[in-house]
Amino acid sequence: MQSQSIVSYDKGVGIGDNYHKWNLLREDISLPAAVLSSENVQHNLQWMQKFIEKYNVKLAPHGKTTMCPKLFHKQLDHGAWAITVATVQQVQVAYSAGIRRIIMANQLIGKTNMTIIRQLLDDDPDFDFYCLIDSSTNVEQLGKCFNNEKQRRLQVLLEIGVNNGRTGIRNEEEEKLILNILSQHQNSLALVGVELFEGVLNEEQPIRLMLQRAVACLQRLINSNQLSRLPPILSGAGSAWYDIVADEFSKVAPLVDIILRPGCYLTHDAGAYHRAQIRILEQNSIARDISNDGGLRPALQIWAYVQSIPEINHAIIALGKRDAAFDAGYPVPVLHYRPEWSKPIEIDNTQYQITKMMDQHAFLTCPSNHNLLIGDIIAFDISHPCLTFDKWRKILLINNDYTVIDILDTFF
Amino acid sequence: MQSQSIVSYDKGVGIGDNYHKWNLLREDISLPAAVLSSENVQHNLQWMQKFIEKYNVKLAPHGKTTMCPKLFHKQLDHGAWAITVATVQQVQVAYSAGIRRIIMANQLIGKTNMTIIRQLLDDDPDFDFYCLIDSSTNVEQLGKCFNNEKQRRLQVLLEIGVNNGRTGIRNEEEEKLILNILSQHQNSLALVGVELFEGVLNEEQPIRLMLQRAVACLQRLINSNQLSRLPPILSGAGSAWYDIVADEFSKVAPLVDIILRPGCYLTHDAGAYHRAQIRILEQNSIARDISNDGGLRPALQIWAYVQSIPEINHAIIALGKRDAAFDAGYPVPVLHYRPEWSKPIEIDNTQYQITKMMDQHAFLTCPSNHNLLIGDIIAFDISHPCLTFDKWRKILLINNDYTVIDILDTFF
Repeated sequence: MQSQSIVSYDKGVGIGDNYHKWNLLREDISLPAAVLSSENVQHNLQWMQKFIEKYNVKLAPHGKTTMCPKLFHKQLDHGAWAITVATVQQVQVAYSAGIRRIIMANQLIGKTNMTIIRQLLDDDPDFDFYCLIDSSTNVEQLGKCFNNEKQRRLQVLLEIGVNNGRTGIRNEEEEKLILNILSQHQNSLALVGVELFEGVLNEEQPIRLMLQRAVACLQRLINSNQLSRLPPILSGAGSAWYDIVADEFSKVAPLVDIILRPGCYLTHDAGAYHRAQIRILEQNSIARDISNDGGLRPALQIWAYVQSIPEINHAIIALGKRDAAFDAGYPVPVLHYRPEWSKPIEIDNTQYQITKMMDQHAFLTCPSNHNLLIGDIIAFDISHPCLTFDKWRKILLINNDYTVIDILDTFF
Repeated sequence: MQSQSIVSYDKGVGIGDNYHKWNLLREDISLPAAVLSSENVQHNLQWMQKFIEKYNVKLAPHGKTTMCPKLFHKQLDHGAWAITVATVQQVQVAYSAGIRRIIMANQLIGKTNMTIIRQLLDDDPDFDFYCLIDSSTNVEQLGKCFNNEKQRRLQVLLEIGVNNGRTGIRNEEEEKLILNILSQHQNSLALVGVELFEGVLNEEQPIRLMLQRAVACLQRLINSNQLSRLPPILSGAGSAWYDIVADEFSKVAPLVDIILRPGCYLTHDAGAYHRAQIRILEQNSIARDISNDGGLRPALQIWAYVQSIPEINHAIIALGKRDAAFDAGYPVPVLHYRPEWSKPIEIDNTQYQITKMMDQHAFLTCPSNHNLLIGDIIAFDISHPCLTFDKWRKILLINNDYTVIDILDTFF
């Protein structure tokens, strides 16, 4: 890639190179900024590690959430077996950051995309890569592409889907069709297990049925000796239903690698995944047992200035759709800080709420007797980490004194 | 900024460095990719240049839309007088790309943000910079910060706002208060004009009233000799109502620099700005006169693969909220291409429509007799260029043969 860069200013950083001196309360950062609590990230890493150990399952956290190699490595250091990604570019980022076991939880489509994966496999015998199949057409395309002399077969997982859902086969007829075509490409493709993403559904009972379909499919593949890996893989779980997936999959015979793929546990949030966690802690005794000092904690915040207070109960915050996700709830104010104060105070977010966002502004509705001044700082928890991370090239990792201890690069 | 980068893979590019050989129809690109038609961009640049010349107004296109220095320079080459931005980081990007006249159409808030601007002004006497004021509090903060020995005053524009709108003063009482505080900071701040963003409203009559308030305010400032620039500045206009702004502001005495700030004209779209353009061409005879070969053209597309066709009228496209704006209408399919074909064919987007998007997937509803295959490519026009550009670090500039002729870096 020929670099055309002539500039290098990233948003949400301080002045100069010596970031170890930057402190949020001293206003060393050009706000808005994306801020990650080191302590809360560490807590979440340990929480999920305990969860997978109790269930005796493997973890391949979805890296698309953060696209941050330093965080990938923290996840591997805390028990993750692989990193999951969604696209070939994401595979490239993870691979070049040293990740050598990657699940691309997606179909591999297109000439250049296939070429990139084939080159990685051809060049590195230690690269352990998996992707999904759900159609005969794609199996034929992959079969042709990976039919090379080096005999490095592409490891594929059969994806189970549901009607009106996303990708994945809908029924056993499609399963048979695909297996038939697969049998003609034994030299190129190795079927190693079954996969699903239950997050296309949003109620427990249909999710359990979908999981049971995946288990039954895997059982058929084992019985008919169609699988090229021992133990075979059974993989599912986004960040909202991983307890149910762990529960259902754990009923399967022990000689299966059960792989969960949540991505948002690392930073958690104050929206959709917060609500999911409430359900998990209510229903799942293992999750409760490991939550003595609380469940997952929101670790990612956006810090921004009060820019204008044009009406008595209405402040404009210098933070917009360019800075935080807005598709699953607006950012939630949690801390209020005035530069002359010694530390931030908590803010009552039943009283202070973002009610609208534009590209670069947020509209904060406040009580008429609010105590905000222009130039004050508000820290917001967020909802939907994936679509917040991708708005930042640099994330500030901070300690409990709000001092920056590392800068995390993202690669979206 | 200490670089922590260990990887460099950007999405939507090809393999290797020699991008001049890449062609979309030969599948040289790892899709999804963001693609800009060189011809359509050129057409739009010339269209807007004619528009501002006919109205005898200045153009300061909003650079936050693209955050692409190569496009900023194309805009300057086609008559733009300045580049507008929204944040201090955006000022830094534009300045470091060689832009020496910048309007930050926003209030300047916070210690580090003010320090960055002060350093730029102190270091470069040729840097012509403007920002907005709308509160006494902020005027005091700016007055203190810019009260330095070098006597380089900060040029500020008084922002006019509307009730329940965004920033900007609501009435003449606030105007008087601010002017009073401003008079105490004459050594630091230079009031040079009046500004508004009419796009907080969405009907013509209230917009005209808002514009007339700005004109009246400017007239008061001229009459009371409060302005430090000759001619004073009168600035407004996003990408939806620039014709009305040009029309109202042109009624003002000639010795005023009227500055329009649309940003989306450069790439246009197939959504909100397409609809705005229909109104403009209906109402505005100058816009009609310069549109012999059509008005603005959508120039930005996302190209993506058909990944799965799990049901008879339902295809999954490898394109998601990570790749295109979704807040003002979903991407609109316009071209269908199969790698063995000589060229793409048009697609009937009354029949083929995106009906849902997830982070990395789009759900395309098709007629039951569709002619899609897995591995086919679909090109989508988009709605809301700002929130599409910011999802890409590299944009492919292509000619009419779909060959890449340049790679455009963005700096969000």
